[in-house]
Amino acid sequence: MALGWFYLSCLVLGSLGSMCILFTTYWMQYWRGGFAWDGSVHMFNWHPVLMVSAMVVIYGAASLVYRLPASWVGPKLPWKLLHAALHLMAFIFTVVGLVAVFQFHSHSKIAHLYSLHSWLGITTVILFSCQWFLGFAVFLLPWASLWLRSLLKPMHVFFGASILSLSIASVISGINEKLFFVLKNATKPYSSLPSEAVFANSTGLLVVTFGLLVLYVLLASSWRRPEPGTLIDREVWLPNLSAYLWAGVQVHPQ
Amino acid sequence: MALGWFYLSCLVLGSLGSMCILFTTYWMQYWRGGFAWDGSVHMFNWHPVLMVSAMVVIYGAASLVYRLPASWVGPKLPWKLLHAALHLMAFIFTVVGLVAVFQFHSHSKIAHLYSLHSWLGITTVILFSCQWFLGFAVFLLPWASLWLRSLLKPMHVFFGASILSLSIASVISGINEKLFFVLKNATKPYSSLPSEAVFANSTGLLVVTFGLLVLYVLLASSWRRPEPGTLIDREVWLPNLSAYLWAGVQVHPQ
Repeated sequence: MALGWFYLSCLVLGSLGSMCILFTTYWMQYWRGGFAWDGSVHMFNWHPVLMVSAMVVIYGAASLVYRLPASWVGPKLPWKLLHAALHLMAFIFTVVGLVAVFQFHSHSKIAHLYSLHSWLGITTVILFSCQWFLGFAVFLLPWASLWLRSLLKPMHVFFGASILSLSIASVISGINEKLFFVLKNATKPYSSLPSEAVFANSTGLLVVTFGLLVLYVLLASSWRRPEPGTLIDREVWLPNLSAYLWAGVQVHPQ
Repeated sequence: MALGWFYLSCLVLGSLGSMCILFTTYWMQYWRGGFAWDGSVHMFNWHPVLMVSAMVVIYGAASLVYRLPASWVGPKLPWKLLHAALHLMAFIFTVVGLVAVFQFHSHSKIAHLYSLHSWLGITTVILFSCQWFLGFAVFLLPWASLWLRSLLKPMHVFFGASILSLSIASVISGINEKLFFVLKNATKPYSSLPSEAVFANSTGLLVVTFGLLVLYVLLASSWRRPEPGTLIDREVWLPNLSAYLWAGVQVHPQ
């Protein structure tokens, strides 16, 4: 039963995450003229696609690595490496997404970093880079004691969830701002809700739904690796038997 | 020590929350011509002030009622009533804040509910009203069993935190949108960062900081009422002795 819910959540999360990326790409391709890497507005179009893909979808997937039942037993290091590698991938895509908007601004003589969207977005990326380097130094490199790791883990989880929330707020303000820009002098302005506006607004709500589901599985669900020293009890163990077997690890419950 | 941190957090939260309200009010008063209740843009000015006050500051304070050490011991009903009453106050202010923007739009022949800001904002308010009525029905009215309450409590806490996150995203997109509107034809446009833009952007980041601190105390801190049936152990009990005495309740730890 518990595992059934888990696989259903994986399916829903995977579908919603893919839809977030596909919808943002479709918006840029169909209504905004597609993609290029030449400093034009078509270069800007990479910005929303890369930020939604990196800071929401890949970031969300990376956050949930320790919620996979296969990660609950056996050596933790491979899962830590996967967690760090996915986040690094998210970070690299984020930097490319920032290059896209900065080069477009420079090329079109538009000021950098003036809107609240940009202030919040850049703050979120800076927090993300601090979180990644601190996480790497404390949880992946071997020097830190178990005591220090236990002390910092709740902060790491909290900041991880906070950065995702800030990413969502940045995405919402970004989509909103972009629609006001591009539909300003359109025959059908934003206020008359042309199909582009309905589509992009819906994409925004889709990103919010995906983000909240990730945060739910991360913070509120019971799909967690037991803390070191905890005996895996029968009630947790039995419903997840297939997951433990899938992990290929022999477990001896008390 | 633990209690020292607690009181410091209260001080910081109180100061940040007051600053969120004061900064938003000052923005509307100093740069946007102040307040009225006549369908004009001065009526709109109530909207940001009331939404920040209600959906962020009062909502945040209401969420943290069970984190006050005084609420950890003794009868829970008075604290539930305070929690519900503060949230009801937040909801009433929210409705007045919505009336302000809807009447301004009607009066000025502006379409309702077209921007992503408005879609997300109205979704947040609808979720908030569902959360309040469900919370009232299950946790305040006496019919629900302890089993049902225990089952729904993590959902209630999660949706409570989610609604605050969505409020923050709505506030950020709202401030961003308002600055693009009002500085569109200004001598110093938004992109040249006039003092109003710096002030309002900073207010947005202040709201984010306040919201994250509330979420930290709510979700990540250990300042919680022990679950029914839990023995209050010496390690929790001793540092909080003055709080228990302040609560005026005799505690007999094991």
